[in-house]
Amino acid sequence: MPTADPVTERFTGDLPRMDPSEAASLVPREAVVATSGFGNVGYPKAVPEAIAAAEATHELTVLTGGSVGGEIDTALVDSGDLVRRFPYPGTGAIRAAANDGRVAFHDRHVSRLGDEVRFGGLVEGVDVAIVEAVAVGEDWLIPSPSIGQTPAYVEAADRLVVEVNRSQPLALQALHDVYLPGPPPDREPIPLSDPGGRIGGPTVSFDPETLVAVVETDRRDATYEFREPTDVDRAIGANFRGWLAREAGRNPTMRESIRLQFGVGAVGNALMGSLADLETDLDGERELVYFGEVFQDGLLELVDDGTLETASATALALTRAGQDRLFADVDRYAESIVLRPVDVTNAPGLIQRFGVVAVNSALEVDLYGHVNSTHIGGTQVNTGVGGSGDYNRAGLVTVVALPSTARDGDVSRVVPMVPHVDHTEHDVDVVVTEHGVADLRGRSPTERAGRLLEVAHPEYRPALQTYRDRAERRGGHVPHDLEEAFSWRSSTPEE
Amino acid sequence: MPTADPVTERFTGDLPRMDPSEAASLVPREAVVATSGFGNVGYPKAVPEAIAAAEATHELTVLTGGSVGGEIDTALVDSGDLVRRFPYPGTGAIRAAANDGRVAFHDRHVSRLGDEVRFGGLVEGVDVAIVEAVAVGEDWLIPSPSIGQTPAYVEAADRLVVEVNRSQPLALQALHDVYLPGPPPDREPIPLSDPGGRIGGPTVSFDPETLVAVVETDRRDATYEFREPTDVDRAIGANFRGWLAREAGRNPTMRESIRLQFGVGAVGNALMGSLADLETDLDGERELVYFGEVFQDGLLELVDDGTLETASATALALTRAGQDRLFADVDRYAESIVLRPVDVTNAPGLIQRFGVVAVNSALEVDLYGHVNSTHIGGTQVNTGVGGSGDYNRAGLVTVVALPSTARDGDVSRVVPMVPHVDHTEHDVDVVVTEHGVADLRGRSPTERAGRLLEVAHPEYRPALQTYRDRAERRGGHVPHDLEEAFSWRSSTPEE
Repeated sequence: MPTADPVTERFTGDLPRMDPSEAASLVPREAVVATSGFGNVGYPKAVPEAIAAAEATHELTVLTGGSVGGEIDTALVDSGDLVRRFPYPGTGAIRAAANDGRVAFHDRHVSRLGDEVRFGGLVEGVDVAIVEAVAVGEDWLIPSPSIGQTPAYVEAADRLVVEVNRSQPLALQALHDVYLPGPPPDREPIPLSDPGGRIGGPTVSFDPETLVAVVETDRRDATYEFREPTDVDRAIGANFRGWLAREAGRNPTMRESIRLQFGVGAVGNALMGSLADLETDLDGERELVYFGEVFQDGLLELVDDGTLETASATALALTRAGQDRLFADVDRYAESIVLRPVDVTNAPGLIQRFGVVAVNSALEVDLYGHVNSTHIGGTQVNTGVGGSGDYNRAGLVTVVALPSTARDGDVSRVVPMVPHVDHTEHDVDVVVTEHGVADLRGRSPTERAGRLLEVAHPEYRPALQTYRDRAERRGGHVPHDLEEAFSWRSSTPEE
Repeated sequence: MPTADPVTERFTGDLPRMDPSEAASLVPREAVVATSGFGNVGYPKAVPEAIAAAEATHELTVLTGGSVGGEIDTALVDSGDLVRRFPYPGTGAIRAAANDGRVAFHDRHVSRLGDEVRFGGLVEGVDVAIVEAVAVGEDWLIPSPSIGQTPAYVEAADRLVVEVNRSQPLALQALHDVYLPGPPPDREPIPLSDPGGRIGGPTVSFDPETLVAVVETDRRDATYEFREPTDVDRAIGANFRGWLAREAGRNPTMRESIRLQFGVGAVGNALMGSLADLETDLDGERELVYFGEVFQDGLLELVDDGTLETASATALALTRAGQDRLFADVDRYAESIVLRPVDVTNAPGLIQRFGVVAVNSALEVDLYGHVNSTHIGGTQVNTGVGGSGDYNRAGLVTVVALPSTARDGDVSRVVPMVPHVDHTEHDVDVVVTEHGVADLRGRSPTERAGRLLEVAHPEYRPALQTYRDRAERRGGHVPHDLEEAFSWRSSTPEE
């Protein structure tokens, strides 16, 4: 284990160093493989590709922390080595394979995944963990730009393969705060007393007996690329900012600070951007704190301009440009940014204790506030639920922010009934679109419908109102006309 | 505040004692009223009835802890004084009013409700708290057979009315462990280190300035009545017990103890009953611990015969006979039973730390494991979500146990698509019916459908299989035929 001094060497001690193909040959043909990686960064690259390139055909169950790049989710799909996959489909290839049944995929709340793997019976043990690191010793490693599920997976694994990636700065260790909750039922409370606190160190420990391979790479992450904010994104941001300022004026827990979480994506990035001007709307100074799972480019701006005091996340889900900017000055950013395991960033007990305002996007929301985050048309998986359920359930106030339409206006994102529910009406407090803010708190389902209609796109409001009227004539606490719930657009006289 | 000695007087100090109608007159005509009560016990009776009987017409928003009796949910509905209601519809009258729109009702996860009222903006403050107690002083009260949201509501309220109920034994104080989490963002972790531990005392403290009325009553609770277990219930119980024994043999967190939660109701009661024989199925001795929200008659048996070491709950949701049995011997039961606020019993951080196996019933489950707990036909509210979402989300393994059919076999409870989702596919691990156990862990949606078909009633399996085949031909990760999803029974050739 390294001492308190920073680690300056990539490799320490007597290590089983080998090339990627040799490491790949240590993975059994049928195996449960758990990898590092979250927010498209910090995932292993060379060994998964070597597995895909090997002549042997595998039947692998692959668990990642969250979203990972094509070296896993495309290469192993295309090679036919991947048969089962949890929890987040990171590429078009894995989504297509999940949708056509080639890969058995199931999505999980990321906060629960470490426990489900260690104890909960999601898999029958982990055969091999493959983990990217910036440095490794005989019984420790230092994660790269994401921590994700790495401590849990490393603990659960029979064998450990480490990829030391020279393109990931050693300085990233300054960001890391590794703490793994112990096993139930004697698990202690997570001793974090403020969002920016530190309760661990930079290293993930492991049983040295498990370390079977250390591989060296020098490959950048296939980072996210986000579109530039559109006018619609900016309008959503402005509406959100206005709502947040009003809430901060009302909410007794926000008198001194505001704790926020944003979901990954272009809308989330635009919402973060809107906060640069928040102070002008507030009735007094507030400390702004981020307690979420991904640190995106939008937050980099806020750290740089001093708007954001503290940011806690599990992954630096930055674009390439954002990564370059942070990598050039890691030690300065480490004064404000902490990276933790998902078991900590997404722990509902912490989200509750800190009173986090959760802000996540979605595919669509229905008139009663049920939210579909993941499945287009209810059937085609488009993205993972990630931690949105963790924050939407445990947040003090939960906000869903989305454009009112999709496909250049051809589809309303406010619909009578979502065909797949990731977040129930009980978990959604406020919906923001470019047309306004629907504050659903304290409202009955029919009242919620009235408010949600007001933030739908004006072109779709008549058809939604027609559905609502017909449903209400049928009565009930959550009125619906089930025959028309999914065919409302084609069956309304307005169209 | 009482000292460590038990309180022996019902009334201590200089108290504003008055009759119920005088107390009722202190409730403004338009007001937010928050009451004690959970699991149909411990709710105020005389003052709500006096409000209903008063000539003045009120427009009340009423928050309860959970389920309460007709003195609130029937009397105030019938008198027209109730306009808005959270979170759990306890009687036929309030359900009918929620369904026909006379009362604006919205359901909330009970674990979040205290925070939502204190900080989250569910209501704009609480005008009056009306709380049943076994004893009261100038700045403290001792709750009766439920604690529920009482500490949070009392803290939030501008005015406090206390009903001291002589029919509730003073000895109940021995069960109580009152602990109210502080306000975010500086909230401490809940310092409970084991399910049976004690971190508070028997009293709820309040600002003496808020106490405006103390009323005396002598009225029993309108306790739950549960039907006798049917053969189907017993078969579900036997299947559950078999699964639990296998899980205990596999799960490393269950080597010494098993922590369980059961939802309220006849099925839950039958499941508890099945545990009396659990030991014979186990591969070794285990301590059995209950960490849930309601303590039902089924648990009383297990405490009496020594099967259950410890039970933690927020309400003694007993039948009249069960209440008589416990009331006759409170001090002995207090060696095993602790009552806490819902903020503690349902805290996700604690449910996770203790590795609780969550066992809840439901109205219906669909082929992919989404669960409808509350709305018949998706529209008519039939019960509240209660804490099922708290345990189903945070439990180490979550079990949904339900009969395969309803209405004497006329309706399948396994359906293609539930028309209302209270628990998503991400939150449901195991489904138990009288026909078997569907262990969904680690399975893709289409695999889940295969396992769920096997626990459906044989009569409905062909029609479900026909739907499944048709849906799978359309493809997708969660295959559906949305036009037929709600009309499958009438549109299948088998019928």
